[in-house]
Amino acid sequence: MFHLLDVIGTMAFAISGVLTALNKKLDPFGVFIIAFVTAVGGGTLRDVLIGRTPVGWMQDLTYVYMISLGFFTALIFRKKLDRLRKSLFLFDTIGLGVFTLIGLEKGIEIGLHPIICIALGTMTACFGGVIRDILCNEIPIIFRREIYATICIIGGIVFFALKYFNLNNDVLYLVTSSVIITIRLMAVKFKWYLPTVGKV
Amino acid sequence: MFHLLDVIGTMAFAISGVLTALNKKLDPFGVFIIAFVTAVGGGTLRDVLIGRTPVGWMQDLTYVYMISLGFFTALIFRKKLDRLRKSLFLFDTIGLGVFTLIGLEKGIEIGLHPIICIALGTMTACFGGVIRDILCNEIPIIFRREIYATICIIGGIVFFALKYFNLNNDVLYLVTSSVIITIRLMAVKFKWYLPTVGKV
Amino acid sequence: MFHLLDVIGTMAFAISGVLTALNKKLDPFGVFIIAFVTAVGGGTLRDVLIGRTPVGWMQDLTYVYMISLGFFTALIFRKKLDRLRKSLFLFDTIGLGVFTLIGLEKGIEIGLHPIICIALGTMTACFGGVIRDILCNEIPIIFRREIYATICIIGGIVFFALKYFNLNNDVLYLVTSSVIITIRLMAVKFKWYLPTVGKV
Repeated sequence: MFHLLDVIGTMAFAISGVLTALNKKLDPFGVFIIAFVTAVGGGTLRDVLIGRTPVGWMQDLTYVYMISLGFFTALIFRKKLDRLRKSLFLFDTIGLGVFTLIGLEKGIEIGLHPIICIALGTMTACFGGVIRDILCNEIPIIFRREIYATICIIGGIVFFALKYFNLNNDVLYLVTSSVIITIRLMAVKFKWYLPTVGKV
Repeated sequence: MFHLLDVIGTMAFAISGVLTALNKKLDPFGVFIIAFVTAVGGGTLRDVLIGRTPVGWMQDLTYVYMISLGFFTALIFRKKLDRLRKSLFLFDTIGLGVFTLIGLEKGIEIGLHPIICIALGTMTACFGGVIRDILCNEIPIIFRREIYATICIIGGIVFFALKYFNLNNDVLYLVTSSVIITIRLMAVKFKWYLPTVGKV
Repeated sequence: MFHLLDVIGTMAFAISGVLTALNKKLDPFGVFIIAFVTAVGGGTLRDVLIGRTPVGWMQDLTYVYMISLGFFTALIFRKKLDRLRKSLFLFDTIGLGVFTLIGLEKGIEIGLHPIICIALGTMTACFGGVIRDILCNEIPIIFRREIYATICIIGGIVFFALKYFNLNNDVLYLVTSSVIITIRLMAVKFKWYLPTVGKV
């Protein structure tokens, strides 16, 4: 079940990568790479920083297949994706929750401090988009207005708060991802943004 | 022989890095770093992702020396490099073939799947240029029109197709690099580009 | 003493990161990430390239705390930081010296060649700023006019020249960091820049 959500999230992230790339006049190879880094860039950065190599997508081809599937789907149906925007947004949000949990888990596995684990969860969920934006020559959107990252951090704090009470892992996962998904849905519905910080 | 070609390719890539940097009003340190990442950035990224650390150029100073040589050569003869453009292009193309093979080999050595090995070959040959373009604040050229990467992928497929027939390694190397070099020369001669993909 | 200087340098780098970010209309999360990579980005890149993982800041929370302290201090006092510019500049310069030494040491610890160690020292001290500039969508300032990197390289050469005479480590550290700090102060006072290199 968890792996299934991971796979759905990966494909959703890849499709959102294609959609970003289509605004940039790239060739198919460029679009594919953007889709690829959007989907697995965060996890790859995490793996490199904690020394879990060869990085994840090199050891489980499912990711490559799902990204390729997302890539071709998005290219073929790119005229009709607007109509699917709602489903896409839902899958993307599921990805956000699942990827955060995966990042948290990888940190816990190797005994890192909760603060670092939360950083790893946020990185896994959000930094694929950061690398995508850098490759597209833009200041990363999550540094400017998207509250993506803040939601992941809140999710991570909830996770460790609950873990403190020795809840069972399934409950932990369910509650944390529900929190992340719910806040994300509300953030978009009610247009929650962080204010920008300037020189005053 | 193979190592010699690697060394020639490294120097050619470094020179092409200097030529790009000269358009960017950088100081000598900036130009050197651009030359450096153009030459070994792809292999460095590959090494980091597969966990082969300290990365290659830290363990064999030949790379540092060849890049320095390329750097000074390019700076001193920068007025005359236009005349040498053809030889440079040839060396650059040799680099493309050799670097792809090196990347393929590193993946095979640690038992990765052929698809991942092809990705590593392409990364080794092409992503130095990607990092160069990011440092120069441009969308990577191979994402926009250069078919560099596609050629490396074709080379990788040929490599594994031939390997399937248990050909001897020397033949494998010779054929694969010849395929890459030939397609690259033809691509430039006949102006082959991938079309860009837009929103329709 | 050495660790104290490291901590001061980290905080100074984080504050300088915030100051850069304030010009970019980022949200608080974006500003924090810029502060973070400015402070520990160079050391993180070094750790990844030499395979020292999980990278430094994941194993010693002091860095996270100091960066957070720098972040909040800079945000709260951002109207008054102009008056503190001199002290900030001094701490920043101390950071430059200390970070170079740390990078040199990490390279020596794992038996790398002096040339590579000097590269690691320079990377530790200067590449946090490079990553900061890339995230802010600018060509890195040290590639254009700041002689930051050149000073670190000179410091590294002095270090190994003295080491050759078997000086004791404390003397080595003191002299090297003094050289770096002195040149940096003079460079700013006398406006020393490297010339840009163009196409002639």
